[in-house]
Amino acid sequence: MTAVSLKQKLRHKIDLKTKPLGALGVLEELALQIGLIQNTETPEISKPTIVVFAGDHGIAKKGQVNPFPQEVTAQMVYNFVQGGAAINVFSKTNAIDLIIMDSGVNHDFEPHLDIIDAKIAFGTNNYQDQPAMTLAQCEDALNKADDIISKIQSKGCNTIGFGEMGISNTSSAALLMAHFTGIPIAECVGSGTGLNDEGIHKKIQILSEVYQKYNPKTPEEALATFGGFEIAMLCGAILKAGALNMIIIIDGFIVTAALLAAHAINPNVLKHCVFAHSSNEQGHEKMLHALNAKPLLSLGLRLGEGTGAALAIPLIRAAVNFLNNMASFESAGVSTESENA
Amino acid sequence: MTAVSLKQKLRHKIDLKTKPLGALGVLEELALQIGLIQNTETPEISKPTIVVFAGDHGIAKKGQVNPFPQEVTAQMVYNFVQGGAAINVFSKTNAIDLIIMDSGVNHDFEPHLDIIDAKIAFGTNNYQDQPAMTLAQCEDALNKADDIISKIQSKGCNTIGFGEMGISNTSSAALLMAHFTGIPIAECVGSGTGLNDEGIHKKIQILSEVYQKYNPKTPEEALATFGGFEIAMLCGAILKAGALNMIIIIDGFIVTAALLAAHAINPNVLKHCVFAHSSNEQGHEKMLHALNAKPLLSLGLRLGEGTGAALAIPLIRAAVNFLNNMASFESAGVSTESENA
Repeated sequence: MTAVSLKQKLRHKIDLKTKPLGALGVLEELALQIGLIQNTETPEISKPTIVVFAGDHGIAKKGQVNPFPQEVTAQMVYNFVQGGAAINVFSKTNAIDLIIMDSGVNHDFEPHLDIIDAKIAFGTNNYQDQPAMTLAQCEDALNKADDIISKIQSKGCNTIGFGEMGISNTSSAALLMAHFTGIPIAECVGSGTGLNDEGIHKKIQILSEVYQKYNPKTPEEALATFGGFEIAMLCGAILKAGALNMIIIIDGFIVTAALLAAHAINPNVLKHCVFAHSSNEQGHEKMLHALNAKPLLSLGLRLGEGTGAALAIPLIRAAVNFLNNMASFESAGVSTESENA
Repeated sequence: MTAVSLKQKLRHKIDLKTKPLGALGVLEELALQIGLIQNTETPEISKPTIVVFAGDHGIAKKGQVNPFPQEVTAQMVYNFVQGGAAINVFSKTNAIDLIIMDSGVNHDFEPHLDIIDAKIAFGTNNYQDQPAMTLAQCEDALNKADDIISKIQSKGCNTIGFGEMGISNTSSAALLMAHFTGIPIAECVGSGTGLNDEGIHKKIQILSEVYQKYNPKTPEEALATFGGFEIAMLCGAILKAGALNMIIIIDGFIVTAALLAAHAINPNVLKHCVFAHSSNEQGHEKMLHALNAKPLLSLGLRLGEGTGAALAIPLIRAAVNFLNNMASFESAGVSTESENA
């Protein structure tokens, strides 16, 4: 079965369902995309999973770009483990498996906790002084993410969403956005967890200086320079999920920044991506535009954690289920338009 | 507990959750609205149900405003009963009860089928010649809807979405929209199930003539003149659900037209309404604007049946669940912004 003929067969199957042509809007495009990813007219969503990568950022210690203190990253990881965060609630609401990863939080977590230890270091360096991490650390992060996604997929998951937690990581994401899209850094910077206008102005000043200080030559070098460990792992996880032919659910500003890096390494990854939502962080819409991506939801979220991805999963299920389970005009004995001629 | 203090308490509860202020966007507004409807800080979604009202329209017999023949209404009711329509699939996907009502289909359904018989007549009159129904028929439709909603609520449902099926019912909805909003009829008419530009032009001509022919004095008279039986029942159902303090999920163009009538009869109903989506039928966005309504989804749907309402229910569950189940900064031991000062 060639790709072209499968696309035609899927389109035909969608068009024969008991509904006016195109009446299910973007769910029809989603069903088509998922059929093509899985190379079948009867795709399935199996063990949908959200992986939240947490990491700390050197710049956060100064408190210049972030209203919350760095300790909140570790505190929120405890909140994830205890089930009290928004991503816990939304994952439970929508029957999604949730996995928490320590990519590089500045805290020693007790080993009995339900956290996967993939710590690269206790937070990145401050890129105001030196690159956030070494290239070796970045490779380590990419490889660890690769292993983890393989394990998740081997247990039957074919649909994976990504989230993150890391105080100051909108700053890393803004720097990566400027690097990969060419959009001026001032247009990439937003309020993050809630800076006021004065705070945003200061954040733009600081990040403009950082941006001008470096000239990374490869996607990996850009990740190492500006990244967080969680963002490097997100990039590796996206690449591996694409290589394993999974459906990848892209969340908000940080995860999309990681996708920009993954896309620079392998543009083919895009066809596996479902864009969950357009967030309220001001740069996100421009990022999505740069990727020619149409998000499913627009709820004014700006929380991260994978919350947008978790909220989009019922729509992905709905798309697959209508493709598999709706009747056709013929099977239901419903007249078509031509019969009114 | 006064309404003002409950609103303050709900806002406070939302703001203390472990997330930046406002970071859950429209889900925060939704949680607030539902708390106020149920007069509690711990609202619940119980037995969410979609009721699909089906009815036929006199004008459909001429085939001038509808690409599909009138018989499709009855054929789609059989499809609902057999589980093959989009609304069946989405209701099952999202664990929603589904009830099918014959409000006035031009067909005798076998009594053993799982359809509630609320038939007013075998389709309406063609409003090109005379009002679609008598005022007595309209009252009958409103009353029957009232009874049905009472029964559904008495079985424990507190969250109800509405859908419809009726070939040509976008024409009724356009006429009602023009009547209740004052927007010129030409701007209220759209492609329905799929008219081309020529077809829309003809539909506008026909409906302009119909609109000018009548001058209804009351909301009920407008419903009787332009309505379908399913639209009159939708209006009655919306009013009753509001009176019973239920959460009302408004679907697309037809259901919103019924809400315009309900709103003209009792403006208080609006505070119970959650607007599921903005549909692709061109007048819907203007209707929503007239009601100052912000829809949750915008997926390019134009199918009716309550499909948009069914797809919005996971978001409603997510809003209620975060309000009830997310940790607060204090309970989770997470630092707040001020601690970074």
